[in-house]
Amino acid sequence: MGINLSNFLASKSQNRKMGQFQDLDHLDGLSVSSVSANLYNSKRDDLVMFYFRDGANFASVYTQSKILSENIKWNLSQKTQKIFSLIVNTKNANAFTGDQGYKSMQHIAEIVSKQLSEKQKEDEDDPKIIKPKNIIFGCTGTIGEKFPEDKIKFKIPDLVKNIKYTQNKYIWMKAALGIMTTDTQPKMSMEECKIGNTSVKIYGIAKGSGMIHPNMATTLGYIFTDANISNEILKKLLKKNIENTFNAISCDGDTSTNDMITIFSTGKAKNSLIKTVNDKKIKSFDISLNNILLNLAKRVVADGEGASKFITVNVLNSKTEQDAKKICFSIANSPLVKTAIAGEDPNWGRIIMAIGKSGLDINLNKLSVKFGDLMIVNKGKIYNQYNESDAVNYMKNSNINIIVDIGIGKKNFTAYTMDLTKKYIDINTNYRS
Amino acid sequence: MGINLSNFLASKSQNRKMGQFQDLDHLDGLSVSSVSANLYNSKRDDLVMFYFRDGANFASVYTQSKILSENIKWNLSQKTQKIFSLIVNTKNANAFTGDQGYKSMQHIAEIVSKQLSEKQKEDEDDPKIIKPKNIIFGCTGTIGEKFPEDKIKFKIPDLVKNIKYTQNKYIWMKAALGIMTTDTQPKMSMEECKIGNTSVKIYGIAKGSGMIHPNMATTLGYIFTDANISNEILKKLLKKNIENTFNAISCDGDTSTNDMITIFSTGKAKNSLIKTVNDKKIKSFDISLNNILLNLAKRVVADGEGASKFITVNVLNSKTEQDAKKICFSIANSPLVKTAIAGEDPNWGRIIMAIGKSGLDINLNKLSVKFGDLMIVNKGKIYNQYNESDAVNYMKNSNINIIVDIGIGKKNFTAYTMDLTKKYIDINTNYRS
Repeated sequence: MGINLSNFLASKSQNRKMGQFQDLDHLDGLSVSSVSANLYNSKRDDLVMFYFRDGANFASVYTQSKILSENIKWNLSQKTQKIFSLIVNTKNANAFTGDQGYKSMQHIAEIVSKQLSEKQKEDEDDPKIIKPKNIIFGCTGTIGEKFPEDKIKFKIPDLVKNIKYTQNKYIWMKAALGIMTTDTQPKMSMEECKIGNTSVKIYGIAKGSGMIHPNMATTLGYIFTDANISNEILKKLLKKNIENTFNAISCDGDTSTNDMITIFSTGKAKNSLIKTVNDKKIKSFDISLNNILLNLAKRVVADGEGASKFITVNVLNSKTEQDAKKICFSIANSPLVKTAIAGEDPNWGRIIMAIGKSGLDINLNKLSVKFGDLMIVNKGKIYNQYNESDAVNYMKNSNINIIVDIGIGKKNFTAYTMDLTKKYIDINTNYRS
Repeated sequence: MGINLSNFLASKSQNRKMGQFQDLDHLDGLSVSSVSANLYNSKRDDLVMFYFRDGANFASVYTQSKILSENIKWNLSQKTQKIFSLIVNTKNANAFTGDQGYKSMQHIAEIVSKQLSEKQKEDEDDPKIIKPKNIIFGCTGTIGEKFPEDKIKFKIPDLVKNIKYTQNKYIWMKAALGIMTTDTQPKMSMEECKIGNTSVKIYGIAKGSGMIHPNMATTLGYIFTDANISNEILKKLLKKNIENTFNAISCDGDTSTNDMITIFSTGKAKNSLIKTVNDKKIKSFDISLNNILLNLAKRVVADGEGASKFITVNVLNSKTEQDAKKICFSIANSPLVKTAIAGEDPNWGRIIMAIGKSGLDINLNKLSVKFGDLMIVNKGKIYNQYNESDAVNYMKNSNINIIVDIGIGKKNFTAYTMDLTKKYIDINTNYRS
């Protein structure tokens, strides 16, 4: 089911199209192609190719787990300035698959690069030779099962054959569906902005669901822009904007071996070159990129396994942003807070518990807690006009805002999470069966 | 319901009585008295007094939360060498109750000390004057509700009147039931051992259930011995033995404002004085104390909210005990691992995920994972004789052992937890209603 997003995704940007789904269309320099490789023993799409006919600049951030999936090891090992294709498969995470998993990446990259080079010869005036190192992979699914190299190789000709040079919303929807695992909704977002006088597009798709935590957990997020931005600037923009978006969400506190957020720029918009991340010309792009990442991150949380409520945790006036973040996640990761919210119980005592266990020094006399606009705790005491029945009513909302004012500094952080429901348990006790 | 403990509580000590409950009886120098103060608006016992007619030496460890309940603030503020009474109430945690909560402790301590001083005059040849500072409190229940001072004060005469100088198993059972919140079973444990040639007893009772985590969360544990041990030695013994017992358990990763483990020694056994914690004479007591604490800690986990399986996580051959503990809890606190076990799914990939997210450097080529005696991962690869149907059968046990061999050092740690079930959600979405 997931949570209806129309309320909380209200746009800050005039240019953003709103609604439950944002319709993505043509983005110059990118083709998208999806097939079923029968990885789920069903006809659902499970293998998606993103193809950049002239290559794309790119930057990635990966999981901080100490155990990396084989596709991420592959991606990290390729020394290249341009990517020609990103291949994403679901059902199998290619993690803990050892040599077999890594060599599968190599074999598939060889075949993809060869077939795309052939296609270059057929379609392009100035055909490029695409090499295995120009191919990267996103994998998501079960850990520790043999990687289905043959099933995937068998479908590469179909992927290549399906490539169209003009994309429409159906092609995007098919791709967003094709990268899903236990997600119940495809996740797409778009923005248009300017770099100098040039209009550019930013599109994003993502999948999430289980294991979503600060350091991104089985989240795959792919951002595409027709802007012309160097790898170095892309890296800086991505790292900067991930902090208060994908690194600000948590569903169950677990982290995967496979997390990956990559931004690709095709350069087709031909904007003037950006030399530093502080260039004023990049400001609007920077904001739009943050909007896209935050929009996708919120969609990932809202569709978190078993979620019935979307929870925003604001910690205000902390000494450092790091402290504010620590308290945010102490609340956002607390099973007792999350079950209380699932039960629509304004059990603010559990919020106090979670603030206390964060381990940071708290001056109780300065602490205030609100649910939305309702003051609950004011300067360390239960607010004298606190009325539990108002709070009970508030908890019936599908979007819950918790505002904690620490009152000892000037730094804030906002984290996003969902409630903990019986459905989460259902999904996760049955995942492999 | 809880889990049947008879398998995993196999005694290391010849002297320990076994069975689902251990029968506690008379311990010289201690009286126990329980009543209903109607805190639950029912007749269940919810107020328990432990009375030491000649006072007791004592030592406590408390929650590491930065927000302390008012009873713990009271306990920490009393400068005294002897405790004459511990009063435990349930239903109300006396946390975030401010002045009202703290003053309630003072008022109740005044009344208790006065009435017990009267009792001393009636019963003792050498009556002592008991002061408020000789009284400490354990509180557990909901946070942030006004502390029911009057209901409790009203019942103190009954508590005092009920005092008997010889205890039996029914009195102990009543007390163990009286300190429970959402626990489904009373938790008691006993050992007998020697200090030099003198036989001494150690009794313990505990309550747990929600919010059980390394730093003890809403756990109350009280240990009583007739041994004669100084406050200083008691403190050292308790701190040392808490590390691999109550600090090695986790149910949901939350931590309360109220945790408290206290050991009291009445000195009635009149053993020879122990001057240092390294004294050979204390060795058997040290081991027995660890047994008691571990037994109670395991009972707390086994009765964790909604638990259907007891999980032991062993991490072997780590560089430091700290590292081993970190990996243990990364596994023991993972909702994905705990839901897989609830679903009887040998989803070892989630264990790998949890090892990876611990943030410690892992040499995959040295990593082995076993479920009980079943080798799953051997030196970084799926074991060549691994058979999923054996693993599926293993997961049907109510006691699950996960053994992770890191293979890069010599230090081990063992943590204890339970699975994450729909019943946990049920209990916690309905806690206050």
